[in-house]
Amino acid sequence: MSVVVSETAVPALDAVDTPALVVDLERLDRNIARMNATTARLGVRLRPHVKTAKCTAVARRIFGGIGPITVSTLREAEYFFADGFADICYAVTFAPARTARAAALARAGARLSLLVEDVATVRAIAVEAAREGVRFRVLVEIDADGHRAGLRPGDGRLVDVARAVDESTHLDFAGVLTHAGSSYACVGADALRAHAALERDAVVDAAARLRAAGIGCDEISVGSTPTLSHASDLAGVTEARAGVYVFGDLVQSNIGSCALDDIALSVLATVVSHKRDTGRVIIDAGGLALSKDHGTANQAIDYGYGQVCDLSGTPLQGLCVVEVNQEHGLVASRDTAATAAMFDALPIGSRVRVLPNHACMTAAAYDGYWVDGGAALRRWPRCNGW
Amino acid sequence: MSVVVSETAVPALDAVDTPALVVDLERLDRNIARMNATTARLGVRLRPHVKTAKCTAVARRIFGGIGPITVSTLREAEYFFADGFADICYAVTFAPARTARAAALARAGARLSLLVEDVATVRAIAVEAAREGVRFRVLVEIDADGHRAGLRPGDGRLVDVARAVDESTHLDFAGVLTHAGSSYACVGADALRAHAALERDAVVDAAARLRAAGIGCDEISVGSTPTLSHASDLAGVTEARAGVYVFGDLVQSNIGSCALDDIALSVLATVVSHKRDTGRVIIDAGGLALSKDHGTANQAIDYGYGQVCDLSGTPLQGLCVVEVNQEHGLVASRDTAATAAMFDALPIGSRVRVLPNHACMTAAAYDGYWVDGGAALRRWPRCNGW
Repeated sequence: MSVVVSETAVPALDAVDTPALVVDLERLDRNIARMNATTARLGVRLRPHVKTAKCTAVARRIFGGIGPITVSTLREAEYFFADGFADICYAVTFAPARTARAAALARAGARLSLLVEDVATVRAIAVEAAREGVRFRVLVEIDADGHRAGLRPGDGRLVDVARAVDESTHLDFAGVLTHAGSSYACVGADALRAHAALERDAVVDAAARLRAAGIGCDEISVGSTPTLSHASDLAGVTEARAGVYVFGDLVQSNIGSCALDDIALSVLATVVSHKRDTGRVIIDAGGLALSKDHGTANQAIDYGYGQVCDLSGTPLQGLCVVEVNQEHGLVASRDTAATAAMFDALPIGSRVRVLPNHACMTAAAYDGYWVDGGAALRRWPRCNGW
Repeated sequence: MSVVVSETAVPALDAVDTPALVVDLERLDRNIARMNATTARLGVRLRPHVKTAKCTAVARRIFGGIGPITVSTLREAEYFFADGFADICYAVTFAPARTARAAALARAGARLSLLVEDVATVRAIAVEAAREGVRFRVLVEIDADGHRAGLRPGDGRLVDVARAVDESTHLDFAGVLTHAGSSYACVGADALRAHAALERDAVVDAAARLRAAGIGCDEISVGSTPTLSHASDLAGVTEARAGVYVFGDLVQSNIGSCALDDIALSVLATVVSHKRDTGRVIIDAGGLALSKDHGTANQAIDYGYGQVCDLSGTPLQGLCVVEVNQEHGLVASRDTAATAAMFDALPIGSRVRVLPNHACMTAAAYDGYWVDGGAALRRWPRCNGW
């Protein structure tokens, strides 16, 4: 009995059951155009990370059709490939146990790139690829800033891993890739520009070491929304990956990689209760609808679990979701003197839009988007899970 | 190409792609039996909250068939009703805009109870119910401890709201309901027993006020896993609701409402990287697979984003997921002297099980469970979304 429609026109956001995920089409297209221009100016190919939107309709707007993508799960790879996206970089350290599933994609025609950092893993993948009768492109992950996985550019194992790929009959060594995730701890243009240079240097140095060892290195890939938003020089880099920029979110706004009015994703919610005794307005978007990501907790502005906006998407100054239970969001005013005005502004039954801390986490609770913009409200599905 | 099977036998947990959600059947049945015995001893009807498992196979194990349930979304109501569960309490403040969807269930034969706290809302629901030609049972929510929604037992509006229900031709006043959610801040048997008494007194007092005003009050409903785990006397209460007890989790373990080895839910994950330079083992279960719920952060034991166990479910002392990115979980040893042993215990490609902080939030990322126990691994689907 739930609403399952595709590209169906409905009169307005008022007809949608809540909580619901809404995309502002004008902001989405503006964010897309900005990153397209940035990467064109920097002279690198954009390979967007589709893990944020997990939606082929969004990815098609980036390219005006189909282009190379980055994924974080094989389910994303399968879903995008089914809609025509064939050039897919699976940018999470590959587990050899997944080879059969990846091989099915390769046999069907996908140009799949895998990520490795360890010789034993390379050998295991090579055995499985031979057994499956497929070839994979393989990149070595570089750790630019101690954030997560990968080899430091100066790690002696780098050449060993690349050579193990190069010597495998069913693997093609494609290059090096990094994600300078510590950029999320940067704030402002100067810090982000410096971190983008550090990210670039990590892969350019790694590629130079490989070339010095006689191993060609075609692809030199960097990427994060914060670093790309302020990178000034990506000399030596061939490709850039970024994901969350299509929507933006409150964490990105605090970092300085988007403005508050660039945020294209929001959660539509209904006011269900007034708790005047505790100074809380309760909405029907809680921990599941917004996610428990409190990424702004230690940033310049702590938005709790989201910034409350009116139905048009205009932020209601100082009103945030300060607590979440599974299906309840508790809204409070940062300025307690304005609490009475909050109750007047948000009568029971009225609707609000909530800007999320972290778009990737919030969107994951939904099986699709309501697209606000153009002639009529439309529905875009998204893929979830693994 | 992803695995979609139902009640299909597969050889072992080693054949399941990761991350995956696993239920330990023996622990599940033990948790179910314990709560059944507790509520029987306390002399109250159990109306389990199915928002945790969102799975009819789990709910059927509670009753050995079909019984009264509590839900947190209309989608849960629709999913459970389709599988035969007809007595459904929708325990989130009802928004009148949802009446048509609720009415469809009522017309199909569901005995649906709605939750209210506000006269204007009651009148709006009454108008819609009359238009739809259906009747609903209606409960008034009582706020036992300032946790969330509802009227305080002494609030003068209580009688007005109940009377507004009573006077509506399409609504039947059914009673009062509370959820003493501040029990999550209690620790240990004494504190939980006291909070259970406070929860009981709130609804018993409210019912007495209504009866004094000439309004009958059949149902007097309390519930949370922490309060029910230690309640000693529920005199005057008719019904108890609890949800997370079926699985338990690390937050409940810290509170004292379950033991660590009662936890029946875990996330199966694969080790994909060794970062000896940063002292981290990386698994393929990150923020989406575990959720960003860090509910143990301020409890006696901070488990990060989960306790790491071996494949049999035995906790690996001191090993927790200390950081999460979208698809990466970073495991570290609390005792840094044991870091070398961690790398030995968790070779790349090996599998672990991770106990979650908050079962309700973690389970929501999955469309089903792998059921470990009995003859062979089985698959149980669950419902998500709204």
